[in-house]
This record gives sequence, structure tokens and C-alpha cells, in this order.
Amino acid sequence: MKARVTIMLKDGVLDPQGEAIRHALGGLGHRGVTGVRQGKLIELDLDAADPDTARTEIERMCERLLANTVIEKYSVEIV
Amino acid sequence: MKARVTIMLKDGVLDPQGEAIRHALGGLGHRGVTGVRQGKLIELDLDAADPDTARTEIERMCERLLANTVIEKYSVEIV
Repeated sequence: MKARVTIMLKDGVLDPQGEAIRHALGGLGHRGVTGVRQGKLIELDLDAADPDTARTEIERMCERLLANTVIEKYSVEIV
Repeated sequence: MKARVTIMLKDGVLDPQGEAIRHALGGLGHRGVTGVRQGKLIELDLDAADPDTARTEIERMCERLLANTVIEKYSVEIV
């Protein structure tokens, strides 16, 4: 089974990396870009009996390892 | 207008970061995970007349700055 985990900084948490990208894009002439947020995308292949089991296990992985839930939010999509 | 850019290593390009995540997940007992690929997600706010213009401009940003098209592939989604 394949799954996609999206991890972004929570709203309100400063994103200096996104800001650096925005600044660099402005320098290249892309001045219409008013905001940039950068996050992570993790694609997983896993053996699981069914999508619900997979989702539960992946949420556990996010809580334990993949995301820093103090400052990051995550979403899981089974594909 | 909001857009989401997904940047992943091309198939066949080694992903040591993904492999490290897979290894760490295995160490935590998630042994059903057989493969992990890590990529980037960039959310953009931009001023654009219409979705087609936005997409063209974002593809240009990817080619010039956001992605390393030698080893990475990208996809653009207007949301």
C-alpha cells in the first residue's frame, strides 16, 4: 500500500526557509509571490491489511518520528 | 491565488534521507514499511490573473530555483 504524508509548520509558526524562498523568487523577478511556506512530503510503501490499519499506523509514525507535533501539523493520504 | 508545488527525487535517484527514515521507523517497530521517499512541498500565495498564468509562472520558478531538474521532478497544483 502506498501513502503520502504531508508535514507543514503550523499556522503562526515562523517559516524562515519559506521566507528565504520568497525573497529569492522576488530577486529573480517573481514579485507576485506574497507568501511561501515550505513543508515535507514523505511517500511510504507499507504492508498493511487495509487502508484504515495503514492510516492508524502512519499516524503513530507521525506522532513518534516524522513530525514535531509541537510546531508541525501532518496529514495522511492513502493512495 | 494559492498553489502547491511538490518536488520529489526522480525515480532511480538514491534517497538516503528516505532510507534513514525507513531505518528509523524499523527501529521503532514499524517493520511493515518497505520504502520511503522524502520530498519537499512548497505552498505559494501569488497574485496572478488566472490559474493558467499562475501555473506557467510557477513552472518557471521550479525550473529556475525551486527544483533541481537534473535529479528532481515537480508537480504544480493550483488550489
